[in-house]
Amino acid sequence: MQIAARKTLQGLRVLEIGHFVAAPFATRLLADQGADVIKIEPLEGDPARQWGRQIDGKSLWWSAHARGKRCITLNLKDPRARDAVLDLVAQSDAVIENFRPGQLERLGLGPDILRAKRPGLVIARISGYGQTGPYRDRAAFGVIGEALGGLRYLTNHAPGTTDLPPVRVGVSIGDSIAGLYAAFGVMAALWQRDRSDGDGVGRTLDIALTESVLSMMEGMLPEYDALGIVKQPTGGGIATAAPSNAYRTRDGWVLIAANSNPLFARLMALMDRPDLIDEPAYAGNATRVAHAEELDRLIGEWTLSFTSQQLLERLEAADIPSAKAYTAADCAQDEQYRFRGAVRGIFDPAFDREILHCGIVPQVVEDDAALPLPGPAIGADNEAILGDLLGYSDEKLAILRAEGVIA
Amino acid sequence: MQIAARKTLQGLRVLEIGHFVAAPFATRLLADQGADVIKIEPLEGDPARQWGRQIDGKSLWWSAHARGKRCITLNLKDPRARDAVLDLVAQSDAVIENFRPGQLERLGLGPDILRAKRPGLVIARISGYGQTGPYRDRAAFGVIGEALGGLRYLTNHAPGTTDLPPVRVGVSIGDSIAGLYAAFGVMAALWQRDRSDGDGVGRTLDIALTESVLSMMEGMLPEYDALGIVKQPTGGGIATAAPSNAYRTRDGWVLIAANSNPLFARLMALMDRPDLIDEPAYAGNATRVAHAEELDRLIGEWTLSFTSQQLLERLEAADIPSAKAYTAADCAQDEQYRFRGAVRGIFDPAFDREILHCGIVPQVVEDDAALPLPGPAIGADNEAILGDLLGYSDEKLAILRAEGVIA
Repeated sequence: MQIAARKTLQGLRVLEIGHFVAAPFATRLLADQGADVIKIEPLEGDPARQWGRQIDGKSLWWSAHARGKRCITLNLKDPRARDAVLDLVAQSDAVIENFRPGQLERLGLGPDILRAKRPGLVIARISGYGQTGPYRDRAAFGVIGEALGGLRYLTNHAPGTTDLPPVRVGVSIGDSIAGLYAAFGVMAALWQRDRSDGDGVGRTLDIALTESVLSMMEGMLPEYDALGIVKQPTGGGIATAAPSNAYRTRDGWVLIAANSNPLFARLMALMDRPDLIDEPAYAGNATRVAHAEELDRLIGEWTLSFTSQQLLERLEAADIPSAKAYTAADCAQDEQYRFRGAVRGIFDPAFDREILHCGIVPQVVEDDAALPLPGPAIGADNEAILGDLLGYSDEKLAILRAEGVIA
Repeated sequence: MQIAARKTLQGLRVLEIGHFVAAPFATRLLADQGADVIKIEPLEGDPARQWGRQIDGKSLWWSAHARGKRCITLNLKDPRARDAVLDLVAQSDAVIENFRPGQLERLGLGPDILRAKRPGLVIARISGYGQTGPYRDRAAFGVIGEALGGLRYLTNHAPGTTDLPPVRVGVSIGDSIAGLYAAFGVMAALWQRDRSDGDGVGRTLDIALTESVLSMMEGMLPEYDALGIVKQPTGGGIATAAPSNAYRTRDGWVLIAANSNPLFARLMALMDRPDLIDEPAYAGNATRVAHAEELDRLIGEWTLSFTSQQLLERLEAADIPSAKAYTAADCAQDEQYRFRGAVRGIFDPAFDREILHCGIVPQVVEDDAALPLPGPAIGADNEAILGDLLGYSDEKLAILRAEGVIA
């Protein structure tokens, strides 16, 4: 195997003018692969620094969310801050931003102005509804992507099962998916710009949270269009396969997929119900789907007598596909994640201890697999970036600090 | 604005040896941006051709899932099929596969053999648990990524609220996220390989469904590690903000986020309950979070008296962030999606009619925005690829067909 002399994105510089989740998630992925990411924050910092659980006013999420980035502060309302952004743009390959549409232009930092400083600059713009169209100015609050993308409606039990509302998946999945699309788009645009036979064009990527989620909805639109079928939620199961669901154990939930005839027979044998293998109501997947509710109840009564660990051992011994619905504790302790470095500790000086992070995705076999450094403090890299990289004098930095342009 | 002479990924050729969702989703994204994707299927076709609703035995999902690809059949157990794969590899930039770990090697198509034909080939390998480690040989059934990534546990109502199981999001989100990571990784590796100052290395990307999902879990791991907090599901709401939830209307669900003091005051005024604005139990976000259940019940009783449309008009007039939990029908008809081409019809000869697809993500401002052609029939491009591209003679093709090497 050939060992790479550098990480995949070494030599790439990306400027983030972002906040909250979507743009910072995109740059985290680029930084994970070795890009030099410079994040510009207002003097009080990205509001995400206050999100989630804290120790001494410092967010634990931030440790991972901002890892591998260099953080500088700039009060973008000051023209000298705008000049600093343009100086940075001149030395960058791409900019990723997630202001409301039009805000970058109002700051005097629209695409044309940026590209006057750096021809060929790739610009990724993430927003709730996109940069154009009748909704572009609407407030894009957190769950907009999930709601309008069609995901939230489907994240529910079957109609008539419960009065409880459809469920949030527990994270801002719409933002992260949009951020992942931005990371993909930036690298695609840079490939076409920079390869020897490329076109040199600095492309502008317009990424809507709504469209990013909609893009993952499989057959939902074609099936509605051609057959008038409005896809419905199916709870923990799948509309077309049974038994396949999450079943309660004494201490959690285990997913079981026994939706083929041999798997179903093995499960019934394991449950000590061989009589049900030839029961007409359960003969064949289609018949089982029609009787899925009673089947799930039977299985659920059986699984309740075990801990998740006991149940999984039995299912694995019978070669029946199964998995625990992992909690944070399960993820942290899983031996496969630990073996592959997909869960690992990294020393974070902000907490003076190791903090557990998820690993780098994709894992690149030829690359150094080290995690980048944890998310830095507000303005931690002001001197390194404005001083060393841009060549601002100590005197100039002192003035900018005194006059509230940097923190 | 500079108009690009070609689509972002024009000039890129990618070979897909994939099936089901993850690898084909990755190549759909590449094809959407203009890559020449050649998909290799067994003679009976990718099983995904049978998934979802059908018309005359043809899957509607397939129309979008395989769009922009050229499809050829090869019986990979025949050595002549293996030779054909190697001939294609010689003319490709990247291969994306999602066999079980080890299967590519057993077919005589391991990375070293592929790179002997095409030095610098980028190879993306998608699997349930990754290519290494104690779980690598386990069966990776559909929801594995969601379950082990920690997503499924959180996609539920708060503990004690209901006996119903945690919910599936309605699509194979773990597969699609892994596919999106693969598309990102391939473009990152190609950028470093192909740019003038690049390292020329053909990288191998090892993408696990589990790790792809875990990568999106925000502060879950750091917070568990440092504070012992096992993140818990919160139903339709958010643990740290209230009121913010999905509320039932006469014909659906509407999300409302009124979790600041001014927004809460506006919502109470709109509900004709100004008396609650200064109610101590609802003063400030933290207090409202503590009383979120009764607050949600109050709001839910009010929303039930409207249709979603009526409710949204009122909320928008009061400038309160809100969104409908869109169904397939809502997505299909939405004016923003239509305006931006994020939902659009494309003629599909398989159905002799237009079929509604989602648009291309990211939208690239400088590129031609046309959708690629809908998913082709089994073996539709055998002649074009094996004949025209590889130069196999008609005679050779006839023999391969007669002997069951191609369909």
